This record gives sequence, structure tokens and C-alpha cells, in this order.
Amino acid sequence: MIIHLKNTITAEKAEALAAQHQAAIYKKEDYFVLIQSSKIKTLADTLADHAEAYFVLDTDIQLSSRDYLQTTREVQLGKVTIGGNTNHSVVITGPCSVESEKQIRQSAQLCNQLGVKILRAGSFKPRTSPYTFQGMGIEGLKLLAKISEEYGLKIITEVRDASHVDQVIEYADIIQIGAKAMYDHGILKKCGKTNKPVLLKRGFGSTLQEFVQCAEFVISGGNEQVVLCERGIRTFETKTRFTLDLCGVAFLKEHVNLPVILDPSHAMGYAYGVPDLTRACLAMGVDGLLIETHPNPKVAKSDAAQQLNHEEFSNLYNSLTPIASAIGRKIV
Amino acid sequence: MIIHLKNTITAEKAEALAAQHQAAIYKKEDYFVLIQSSKIKTLADTLADHAEAYFVLDTDIQLSSRDYLQTTREVQLGKVTIGGNTNHSVVITGPCSVESEKQIRQSAQLCNQLGVKILRAGSFKPRTSPYTFQGMGIEGLKLLAKISEEYGLKIITEVRDASHVDQVIEYADIIQIGAKAMYDHGILKKCGKTNKPVLLKRGFGSTLQEFVQCAEFVISGGNEQVVLCERGIRTFETKTRFTLDLCGVAFLKEHVNLPVILDPSHAMGYAYGVPDLTRACLAMGVDGLLIETHPNPKVAKSDAAQQLNHEEFSNLYNSLTPIASAIGRKIV
Amino acid sequence: MIIHLKNTITAEKAEALAAQHQAAIYKKEDYFVLIQSSKIKTLADTLADHAEAYFVLDTDIQLSSRDYLQTTREVQLGKVTIGGNTNHSVVITGPCSVESEKQIRQSAQLCNQLGVKILRAGSFKPRTSPYTFQGMGIEGLKLLAKISEEYGLKIITEVRDASHVDQVIEYADIIQIGAKAMYDHGILKKCGKTNKPVLLKRGFGSTLQEFVQCAEFVISGGNEQVVLCERGIRTFETKTRFTLDLCGVAFLKEHVNLPVILDPSHAMGYAYGVPDLTRACLAMGVDGLLIETHPNPKVAKSDAAQQLNHEEFSNLYNSLTPIASAIGRKIV
Amino acid sequence: MIIHLKNTITAEKAEALAAQHQAAIYKKEDYFVLIQSSKIKTLADTLADHAEAYFVLDTDIQLSSRDYLQTTREVQLGKVTIGGNTNHSVVITGPCSVESEKQIRQSAQLCNQLGVKILRAGSFKPRTSPYTFQGMGIEGLKLLAKISEEYGLKIITEVRDASHVDQVIEYADIIQIGAKAMYDHGILKKCGKTNKPVLLKRGFGSTLQEFVQCAEFVISGGNEQVVLCERGIRTFETKTRFTLDLCGVAFLKEHVNLPVILDPSHAMGYAYGVPDLTRACLAMGVDGLLIETHPNPKVAKSDAAQQLNHEEFSNLYNSLTPIASAIGRKIV
Repeated sequence: MIIHLKNTITAEKAEALAAQHQAAIYKKEDYFVLIQSSKIKTLADTLADHAEAYFVLDTDIQLSSRDYLQTTREVQLGKVTIGGNTNHSVVITGPCSVESEKQIRQSAQLCNQLGVKILRAGSFKPRTSPYTFQGMGIEGLKLLAKISEEYGLKIITEVRDASHVDQVIEYADIIQIGAKAMYDHGILKKCGKTNKPVLLKRGFGSTLQEFVQCAEFVISGGNEQVVLCERGIRTFETKTRFTLDLCGVAFLKEHVNLPVILDPSHAMGYAYGVPDLTRACLAMGVDGLLIETHPNPKVAKSDAAQQLNHEEFSNLYNSLTPIASAIGRKIV
Repeated sequence: MIIHLKNTITAEKAEALAAQHQAAIYKKEDYFVLIQSSKIKTLADTLADHAEAYFVLDTDIQLSSRDYLQTTREVQLGKVTIGGNTNHSVVITGPCSVESEKQIRQSAQLCNQLGVKILRAGSFKPRTSPYTFQGMGIEGLKLLAKISEEYGLKIITEVRDASHVDQVIEYADIIQIGAKAMYDHGILKKCGKTNKPVLLKRGFGSTLQEFVQCAEFVISGGNEQVVLCERGIRTFETKTRFTLDLCGVAFLKEHVNLPVILDPSHAMGYAYGVPDLTRACLAMGVDGLLIETHPNPKVAKSDAAQQLNHEEFSNLYNSLTPIASAIGRKIV
Repeated sequence: MIIHLKNTITAEKAEALAAQHQAAIYKKEDYFVLIQSSKIKTLADTLADHAEAYFVLDTDIQLSSRDYLQTTREVQLGKVTIGGNTNHSVVITGPCSVESEKQIRQSAQLCNQLGVKILRAGSFKPRTSPYTFQGMGIEGLKLLAKISEEYGLKIITEVRDASHVDQVIEYADIIQIGAKAMYDHGILKKCGKTNKPVLLKRGFGSTLQEFVQCAEFVISGGNEQVVLCERGIRTFETKTRFTLDLCGVAFLKEHVNLPVILDPSHAMGYAYGVPDLTRACLAMGVDGLLIETHPNPKVAKSDAAQQLNHEEFSNLYNSLTPIASAIGRKIV
Repeated sequence: MIIHLKNTITAEKAEALAAQHQAAIYKKEDYFVLIQSSKIKTLADTLADHAEAYFVLDTDIQLSSRDYLQTTREVQLGKVTIGGNTNHSVVITGPCSVESEKQIRQSAQLCNQLGVKILRAGSFKPRTSPYTFQGMGIEGLKLLAKISEEYGLKIITEVRDASHVDQVIEYADIIQIGAKAMYDHGILKKCGKTNKPVLLKRGFGSTLQEFVQCAEFVISGGNEQVVLCERGIRTFETKTRFTLDLCGVAFLKEHVNLPVILDPSHAMGYAYGVPDLTRACLAMGVDGLLIETHPNPKVAKSDAAQQLNHEEFSNLYNSLTPIASAIGRKIV
């Protein structure tokens, strides 16, 4: 149950009510929001006098449910608006990992050249083997900050675990919580306390219910700037790296009020399939696309097989505008 | 290994060579084709004098591999051409099951009204419970034949098991092998001996490798008119009925020379998601779309939740042309 | 809903009632059993006078539910009893495929030597490639019949599709419906009309609900002699061929009244893991074990990697008795 | 490639060699071990003079591979030895969560009464909803420490994320890395620097390869005291919570040199199946069993459905000794 307290309730009183009713609490504009378990279906007598409004939800998808808020939430990133009723489909590109200044500069130039406004690159890589490249760490973050400043780009970069979440929050414009870190409470709680946008990737073994509930950790912490990202789930099929779950995206669009961005690169795992899949994702009418590119994929230190080179990406990018038009959307 | 025998080799001799080399055999135009296990990498001395050409393949995806035949095969169905280099995306619609003459007549009228040329409807239903509607059987086939004649439509209908495969081959214009029957050798072998087009649906627990190898049973039987249909695989996600595997479709487009048709209705399981998914499928650049519709889905005897009503389908159908144009394709 | 008609109701009348109420029907001892959809929760007025008893079930797992019949059903195979309250764990062994008289004779000798009473071997193989060994067909069935007679063994062999179901029913002592044929209505219906025991394997992409409902096709056809066989499901893990679902077996033991036999050989796919898994299966307290063995696995025409040689199997077999004793069961 | 440096190589030199060759490094007894990517198959000339021995491995399962070290590693926990050639199967039990002193005291009494030496209980719970009980946190750890002291028990408790890993390392006797935290580099790295045993649970969406590679993060950090725990993977089956992967356990026993403990409680999700599954796990011949129990499962604040009550567990525990004897093992 979600309860909007009256705006006359003080912080102290609101905190006391939350503790008394085992509720999460955050401040929204001039009032406090309490969230109890969705198993609670009737408003407690001890809350009745303090509640301006309350909402009974079926499951613990509460703040992000369209049963609570019908319209898609709007995430603001400088001049770029994601979601809401903008009919924007935001394209984000860049390499899997920051590898060098030269490389990331080339990626930034690609963005400028095409009009892409958000650059992606990871610096703390959650690799599955300890014997491979683990990312440039804090040095990579600083490099991203420098280049983004220079080229006027927004930066999205990944936090791998709670040990460096403060650094990523400091340097990133959008904080990406990767698929393997989706359940990381240390990260989710810190992200709930920042006001920067958060892109939450779905764990590849996670249900939609769990995925959206992880977003609820951030929102109920006080940060409503959350974007969901579907990037492929793990199935029995091994010809491709993962299986992009567009049925799941249809579910999210119908039932969840958060903007949705798709990452066909990680789902496919092979560059050859990325252009067709990207066009399919766009035709779903989603709020954004996240495509991995590299100036020279063959020498990439991670995800070499799935990154498009700059020419491939330019061709893909140019094919998107007519599809967007066909469904009444705009590439930004 | 695929071996094209010289066109001077008689049927008798070809059969003898096939038996001697444990090879499948079929006649193509004026010559015979032998297919041995892909594990065989060198041409037998005893075949060398009789071979016009031979092809070594990586796996038992042989006749359907783009390493053997680079271009997409063309399937001819009256005046409708599927696949090849037509850039056609064929739309097929109709109810899950034939239920009555009135119902199937309404479906035929919908097709005529929009320009859809192929009507789908099942009459032998592979239900998972013995205590539900099992289809009209042979009566349904006769009804489909009558209506198709009357409305000038082609009919695609499903064969459930080998016990009635002859009847379905007799009445259908395209024989649909359903997901649960994908491995059915009794059906696959009979379909290899007809010259009617076959639409083979992917088993929801089957790998792409197994799926295409089932198509090989039909082609190596002598019937090259095979269309693949992806209709969703079974994963851990339960918010939707299945998970449409568009990454797998990207694989098929890259590696397999058979036309591909997609069925978002069964994948999603809920009508609300079908329009967005259909548009995504089309934007992949596939050879066709199979969408379930019903004059009144609420009273449908099977798959009630996922069938679009005729108004919903008309709206969807009208939204497809601009997307097709955007990617250089044509809805037929 | 299951309805036991009074034993005064004639066949003609019973058939009429079944038709009127869209119910499946079969004769049990001296009365008829009707089965309607489990969605029907109240007895129809028009049935009330004719019903001796009726049972409302949650799902279409009806005749096989422990809510209908609490005790495990007993399947009789000559002198061997499977299930019931026997505390028997029946061991079945033999090769994947009948390959030659010499081979199958060696397998029969192994059985005789150890005291194994049921020999398995397939003759119609549901291979996934058309370019591999497809089984000896009817010749293999005749060979099995001859050897079983000679060695005093019962034979279990697989039906691949409906085109040869009559032959398998004629020659086999237990008819095995393989994983890929689990949904085959042509087979299921014929098996419902025989009185021979049926071993139904779970499709590797099938839920427990679907699995047991396929058994309901056989039982509601009139053949209550059905044994379930779990043989591994398909998951994302590829180090092993399939994933043996012992959690599912725990479910079956709790909720379903059919005997359960396990096949660790197909689940594992590699001989090295079969002994440990077999012991685990036995310790679950199941009604039987199905283990693939071959006189010389290296030259086996199918499933070479997973078959135990005769020495390995003898060692395994000898290790089973103490475990059976430890849980109060007996190897037969 | 694993390289054992000569014991004459100093720390300074060893570090320099590691940096030069992009290798992980840790000290073992009186020498240093370097680990390079398994893709490197030949010893670098610059290492040749410094290497005492080197080992080429197929994959990045290196230090934990039986190709490197044939025997199972031994983990020492006070007087309890896990793994090695002890033929011990260690039983661990206790509640999902520490909830109160009274509750945890009852659990400790159960352990003492039966002879169980290791008590489990979580205090930082990685719940999937923010609106449910999240564990007692540091207070729970202190309570566990107090009770373990009082009752002479060893404590295993879970670290949820990197933000409190230091606290868990301080208070626990065995540090449990939960399934959702398996990839957490912040935790894995800290665990590599402690000398306390680590129990690493397999992520429910993770392959065996990824699972063991996460153990490699800890071992290559210098802590060889790692125990693997299989606790069920996520599949399409929903009648049970997860699917216990015993085929995977057979793989681990064959190929990996780390002790393996099984957790049937989380796999099954329902108490009714836990006894049979536990006996199956034991009959696999594993190094330990982790079973959730609660003095009163009905009021448990987490995992209520799957915890055994103390009477059920006592009955189960008493049934284990004969099975252990049957396979030549001993319950400790």
C-alpha cells in the first residue's frame, strides 16, 4: 500500500509513522510517501487521519505500477528528456569499456558527428573471470568526465559493486547498475539517495517481477529518476549470447510506469544481428536504445564480438529515423 | 556432406549409391542429391566419379545452410511468393481453432476486406489437457476448404500427429507442423513426400539447431518448400506465455536459407502485447507474420486471451505498411 | 470433475451422458467414469441421479491426483509389480538402440546375470538429425521379442510417432513414449486403448503440469497402467546434457498417484556422472531406475557418451542394495 | 596458465613479474603463484627462469580444476574438516534469518541435541522486495556471535553486498556469499584477503563455468578455503521454487577440486520435499548439506514455506546415517 501523507505532517512525525507501520518512506515535493507491503490491503486506523490519499496494489510493484501512476515517468538529463509523453527514443552508444583516451575520444567524435547525446563506457567491469581485463577503474571515470566535458556529452557508466558506488555517482551523469549487480542492495540504497538518473539493467536470470522490485528499492529511497533496461535473459539457446525478451518489454510497457531502454548488443552477442534487432526494438516504441560500438572491435578488451564498428553504427543510425517516423516517434 | 550427382546417373544407380554411403537422397530437377552426415568431410572415392559437385558443411544444418545456398529459398503458394528476394512480408491471420462456419466466414471476410491472402485456423488441436476442446477434426478441414474456395483464400492448418497427416496434406494449402509436433518423424517424412509448402514451428523447448535439422528431414525427403516459424520459447519468465526469440531470428536470417515467419500471438499469450510485438517482428525484416484473430475472442474455445478482435487487427494491419516501407519491404 | 457413475448405468446411457456433458469416459471394473474439465466445480443436476460419487479437483491433473486417489497406483508387468505400496525400486537397463542380435544378446545376458528383469532398447529412434542412425525399426522389435522370450525378460521399447504405434504396442511389454513424443495425441490415444503398461517420459521442455496431463490422456482413455519417467529438462546449463529435475520428482511423489521412474543417463549425458546420480535417484525413494548400458559404448550408434559399460553397471548395481535397505526399499 | 615461482623469488620480484605478465598473484607457503589467462598456452621466455612448475589449463577454471590439483581441497573449520579425503558429509542447519535471541537459541539447542556443529542464519537478507523484512543487520551478527560462543557452535552467515563485508568477515566462522551476490567483486576480493572459509553459492541464473570462476576470484586472491554450494537454478518449472542441479554436482565432483555442499531447502522451496531431496543429495556423496530449520516455520519472517520444524529435521537427520554408511561416508 502506498500512502501519501498530508503535507502538514512533519518529517519527524512521518518518520515515526513509517517506523510504527514498518513502511518505507521518502519525501516527494512537499509531502511524505509511505510504502507498506502490498499484502496490506486496508489503511490502518492509526494512519487514517494523516493520509491525503492511499493506493492498494496487487504486488510489490507499487510505485512503478501503472495502477498507481498511469503515465510513463519522465527522466530529465540536462536537455535530454527520456520517457514521459515525449515520444522520444534516445540513442546511447559507445564502447563496452574505456580502454584509452584515444579510443574514448573517437567514440565521442562519433556521437558528435551523428548527433548522439549520451556516451556509454564501462570502467569497472564485472567480468566472470579474474584472469581477464577488469576495467580502468577510477582512472577511466576521470577520463570519461574529461571527454564528456570537452565534447558536450552526457556519460552513462556502470557501477559493479558497492565498494565504488560513491565514485560512480560522483562522475556519471547516468548511473548504470549492471545485470550482475541488479540485486545489490548496497548500490540500490545509495542510488535511492542521489538525484542522478539511474539505468537499472535486468539480471539475466531475473524475472520481470524481481527486476521492477529492484527499481522500487531506488524509488522508495527517494530517487524517482529510474530507467529500466532489458538486455537479454539466459535461456537454453546457445547460438546467441542471451535472448532479448521483447514479450517482457510488452509487459513492462503495459504495467510499469518507468521508461524502458533496450540493449540488443548484449542480448545478441554478435555484431551481425544487432542492426536488425535494434530496428525491432525501436518499432516496439521504446524510450531508448543502448548500442555498443568500438572504433576497432577486433582489438576491444571486452565484448569484441558484439560491438559495431563506427561505419556499421552510422548505417544503422541512419536507418532508424524512418522507422521512428512510421510509429510517430523521434530519435534524439 | 551434400553431393550433387551427375545428371547422367539413373535413379537406380543413385539409390544404390545412397544405400552404400548411408546417405539421404532426393531428386532435384534432373539430378539426384545425396546427403551424408556432416561429420564426413572428404568425398568417398566410390562417389568421386559420380559427383558433379559436393559441399562440406559444419553441422547437420546442411541443405538449409547459407554456406550451401546463399540466397533465401522461395516458397510459392498460388500467386503469393514467400521468401526469395521478393522483400515480401506476408501477413497471415485467422482464429486459433475452426469453431463454426459462421466464425470462420467472419474471419475470411476480414481477410478479404484488408487484402490478406492466407487464412489460418486449426482443426486438430494439440491441447495439453484431455478435458478441453480438441478441435473439429476432419469436419473443420472440410469447412476450411469450402470457405477458402468461396473467398479465394489460401489455407494454413495444423497437423497434430501422424495419424491424420494424410488428411491435412489433402485439404491444406500450407501444412503447419505445430510446436509440439516439431520432432514428429511420421509427419516430417510425409511432408517430405508432398509438394505443398510446409510451415514448421519451432518447438518451445527446442534449440535452433534442432529446429532447422527438423526442416532438413522435410527437405532431404524431397520437399524444398519449407518455411520456418519462430513462436516463442519457454523460459523462466511467467508474466508472458513464452519468450519470442528474436535473437534466434537474427541467427536464422544470417545462417539459414529458409524463409522465416514470426508468430507473436503465441509468444506473448496476451492480446495487449501483440501489436507492438508484430511491429517489432516486421522491422526485423522477416518474410511473414502469423497473427491470431477471432471475431469475438472472449468466447474463443482456445487461446482466448491472445487473439485480437477484428478491429484491433485492422488497426494493427494498417500500421504495418509505413514500417515495411521504412525498411524497403512490402506487405502482401 | 471426476464422476463415478452408478454400476447400474448401461454403456449406452453412460456414453450419452458423457456426450451431453462434454466429458471423457472410460470403464472401470463394473462402472463408468466420466471426467469433465476441472473448471466445473458443481455436479450438474442432470448427472446427480446417476452419480455414485464425484470428486472436484483443482486442475486437470485429475485421475492422477492424490486428491482423488491417495495411494500410488500399482502397475503389473508379469511377476514384477511397480509402484503401489510394494517399496520396490525396479531397475531397467539395456542399450539406447537395438543395433544387432549379438549386442542385444549381450545386454540380455547382463540382465540375467545380475537379476534385472526388464530390458530396454529403442528401435524407432527420434533422432534430431536425418543424417544419423534412425534405428532398426520393425526388425529391431522382432529381435527384441525373440531375445526376451529366450532370456525370460520383459521388454520396454519406444514409440517415436503415431505411424508405428500399433507395432510397438504389439511387440513391447511396456510401451515407452519418449520425451519428444510426450504430446503425441495419436500415441496417447492408442495407449489409452491397450492394457499394456505405458512409461511416459517427460518432455524436456515440458512443465510438470503438462507432463501429468499427458498421462491423463492415457488413463482417461481407459488404461490406468501408466508410469511417469523424469529424464532431465532443458536449462541454460550446457556442461551436462540436461538437468535432472529431482525437485519435480518430490512434487510428483507428493501430489500425483502414478509410479515414478528416473532416467539419469539421458539427464547427465555422460557416463561418469551416472553412478552418483543413480544412487541419488534411488535415495529419493522412487519406484524405478532406467539406466543405459552397452557392451561397448565407444561403438554405440547413438548416445555413446552416456552409456555405462557392463562392468561399470555391475559395480553400480551392486552399490544399490545397501542404499535401498537404508531407506526401507528393495531392488527388484 | 598457472605458474609456481621458485621459492627463491622475492615478493618484490614476484609482484613485478605478475604486473609484467598481466597475471594474478598470491603467496602459497614459501612461494608465489601467478595465474595468467588460460588462453596463454606457452610459458613466456621471461618467466622460464623463474618458474618451478607450470600448468596449462583448458579454461579459466584453473586453480580449482582437478587437472591442476587432483584431490579435493580440505577446508578446516576448528575441529571440523570439510572435503579432502575425509569422507565427511557435514550437516549445517538453522533458520533463514536471525529473528530474535529466543529463536536463535532454540536453533542452537537443536544443533547441540543432534550433534550438528555448524549453525546457519542470515542477518543481512538480500530480499527481492523493499517492503519486506530485510534482516537484523549488525545486531543479528552480534547475537549469532554470542550464541555460538555459548553453545560451542561454528557460525555461517551471509554477506549481502560489499557495504558490510568487513563486518561479516569479522563475526562469521564461514562467510556465505549468497546466490544473488555470487558475482560481487567487492565481496570476492575481500574474501580473497581473509583466511576464513568461504561458502560460495551458485547464482540461480549462472552457469557452472561462471560459478567456479567466481571461486577463482577468491582463491587467486590468496584464500584457498572455498566451498561451493549448489542451491537450485532457475528453470521454466514453477511448481517448485528452483531446480536443484545434481547433474551439475556430478560435473563439479568430476572436474573441480573444491568441496561441494548442497542446499535442497532453497531449491525446493517447500518443506514437504526437503527430506527426500536431502537423502538424494547425501547419496551423491557430497561434502555437506545445508538445511533450513525454524522452531516455528509458520511465523518465520522469511522463507516460511521451506523451513523444516525441529521434529521434521530430527527425523530427517536420523535417517541420514544409514545412507551415509551405505556409501562409505560419515555424517559430522
